[in-house]
Amino acid sequence: MSGNPSSGQHVPDRFADDPAFAVHEGGKLSVASTRSIESIADLALTYTPGVARVSSAIAAEPELARRFTWAPRVVAVVSDGTAVLGLGNIGPAAALPVMEGKACLFSEFAGLSSVPIVLDTTDVDEIVDTVLAIAPSFGGINLEDISAPRCFEIEDRLRERLRIPVMHDDQHGTAIVVLAALRNAATVVGRELGDLRVVVSGAGAAGVACTKILLEGGVGHIAVADSRGVLHAGRDDLGASKQWLVDNTNPDGFAGTMVSALEGADVYLGVSGGSVPESAIASMAKDAIVFSLANPTPEVDPEMAARHAAVVATGRSDLPNQINNVLAFPGVFRGAIDAGATSITEEMKLAAATAIADVVGADLRPDYIVPSPLDRRVASAVAEAVAAEWRRSGG
Amino acid sequence: MSGNPSSGQHVPDRFADDPAFAVHEGGKLSVASTRSIESIADLALTYTPGVARVSSAIAAEPELARRFTWAPRVVAVVSDGTAVLGLGNIGPAAALPVMEGKACLFSEFAGLSSVPIVLDTTDVDEIVDTVLAIAPSFGGINLEDISAPRCFEIEDRLRERLRIPVMHDDQHGTAIVVLAALRNAATVVGRELGDLRVVVSGAGAAGVACTKILLEGGVGHIAVADSRGVLHAGRDDLGASKQWLVDNTNPDGFAGTMVSALEGADVYLGVSGGSVPESAIASMAKDAIVFSLANPTPEVDPEMAARHAAVVATGRSDLPNQINNVLAFPGVFRGAIDAGATSITEEMKLAAATAIADVVGADLRPDYIVPSPLDRRVASAVAEAVAAEWRRSGG
Repeated sequence: MSGNPSSGQHVPDRFADDPAFAVHEGGKLSVASTRSIESIADLALTYTPGVARVSSAIAAEPELARRFTWAPRVVAVVSDGTAVLGLGNIGPAAALPVMEGKACLFSEFAGLSSVPIVLDTTDVDEIVDTVLAIAPSFGGINLEDISAPRCFEIEDRLRERLRIPVMHDDQHGTAIVVLAALRNAATVVGRELGDLRVVVSGAGAAGVACTKILLEGGVGHIAVADSRGVLHAGRDDLGASKQWLVDNTNPDGFAGTMVSALEGADVYLGVSGGSVPESAIASMAKDAIVFSLANPTPEVDPEMAARHAAVVATGRSDLPNQINNVLAFPGVFRGAIDAGATSITEEMKLAAATAIADVVGADLRPDYIVPSPLDRRVASAVAEAVAAEWRRSGG
Repeated sequence: MSGNPSSGQHVPDRFADDPAFAVHEGGKLSVASTRSIESIADLALTYTPGVARVSSAIAAEPELARRFTWAPRVVAVVSDGTAVLGLGNIGPAAALPVMEGKACLFSEFAGLSSVPIVLDTTDVDEIVDTVLAIAPSFGGINLEDISAPRCFEIEDRLRERLRIPVMHDDQHGTAIVVLAALRNAATVVGRELGDLRVVVSGAGAAGVACTKILLEGGVGHIAVADSRGVLHAGRDDLGASKQWLVDNTNPDGFAGTMVSALEGADVYLGVSGGSVPESAIASMAKDAIVFSLANPTPEVDPEMAARHAAVVATGRSDLPNQINNVLAFPGVFRGAIDAGATSITEEMKLAAATAIADVVGADLRPDYIVPSPLDRRVASAVAEAVAAEWRRSGG
């Protein structure tokens, strides 16, 4: 019974030069029994006939499922493969390594079991129906790499129907870490969030969620740009999510380009791809903050940004200040599950951002505004803050 | 970050007296990363940016998913909770401990990862659509504890649409082990399968599947009874699966009760529940064979059966000759997956039955016609036989 269909090859392997393929050989996850089965007695307790007594008890008293099944502690990582990393719509099979990676991180950083569920449909109704149908198997739903604007409706409908935590990580995981990073960056330059003028470049899933959490976190002035320029009331080409941005940002009704909006701005937040000219970054206010999250190629060249800005952060693992949502999602789900939360509230996301920022503590420096993605203190700090917030709010 | 919501209790625990509940505390499964993440380099290979190169390669060449994802080696254990053990329709949450137990056995006996998927729907179309939607996440579908006749249509439709192994274990797992046991029982009493007169009591999922595999295995004469008596051409109350039985069994057109059919019969196979009077067992032919599989209470009291029959088998773990489908399903899926099979054929099921019977070998005795469920030789023997059969048939 050999598991790996490709071991023991004698032909040259065209994937041998890239260690990423070796890491993915045979997949990156394993499900194991937490009970050993060495005797007939073990078998009769783990399986029939003993299991029938547990099933009967749950049938009579459904709340017992929380104690005697694994479901409450398992997260489904659900994707339709339509917006995978920077690769776009590559489908469920090609999306699976990313979802497996996510499950590896849930396991490694939060001690949570999670299961990748990649879907052979991109239809919103079918995705919602499928997740609702399988939901009794899980204690949380992490939506992942689903394209905008479908991701908004899917998340909203699932949150409405399910009594377990549901979170689209591309939106809210990124947003939580951005808020944490901006809190600390503001401290570095001696500013208050409420005084900052922020330009968000990108009005997709991450742009919308980052804007929402920055507003909730107290940022006073935000302008959001899509590829056609800053969103304002005069635009007549907007869907529901961009219309929400028009109604809640850009109080001055600025109608120019993203580049022109940067003049005098304090913060650039790039969640769009593309590239920003040096002159635009040079035109920002003194002690500017540049978060350029496109991966692997940031919108603003980090070396160039460093010539003009006081704080620079990217999504890259080989540079300081990596804005990586692994800082958020493991602890957010762990905390919500530990507290028995039936949803993830805005207040829980804000608590997560504060917890991430606070891990940095007295070590705060321009090149250390967020903890390392490997910092094992983060997930437990986030989990405790998220669970405490759920309990505080009377959940 | 404590995982167990019920630990550290100070009130007396009403479940403390039954060790089955202790075994189920917190669930019985765990998903873990098979790659450790100790460095930024590990993170950059397991997750972004390295994972993007693997996803890109699969997007360009879908066959690579077989090598670089876990899906081909993961079985979904899917149930709607409508026919759970002897408990009936208890729903998805109460069914989950059984599905977790199945996954424990896949892990322990076949080294296969599997994931319980319990469904919040009992509608055939919705079940089929849901399994089709999540299918790219898995390498096999083990249907479980779905009530007849819905289970027949669900399995048929999924087998037709999917290019991965699909098997309803309550039907075929049981059937495979019954055929294995009957082969060895026939040898014990010095008979050929083709000469045996068999009465099957029960025309549900297991009864239909056992009848089919016994016919394929060469049994010459079978009568099948439901609660109204033996199925024959004069019955006008039959659905599709029972009509199939009428068309393929009971060549004499016997129209009496199950008890009357037992007179002079060689084999009683009970997959129905209920109870059989001693006079009926006493009326069977010399060297009779009694397989009474209802659990926990066999249709025929085993002590009583031993007074009249040469070979007695039950589903009970505390008696000899336990007909337990754990002898079949781990090896069947392992073999199908190892061979890259796109379905589980009738020939593969027959090969599995032969492999199980052959493990007993020269130790064959009236009270040892099937291996112990703990016999670690079984799953690998079944896997090898199933994989060899797939390869032989040019799959």
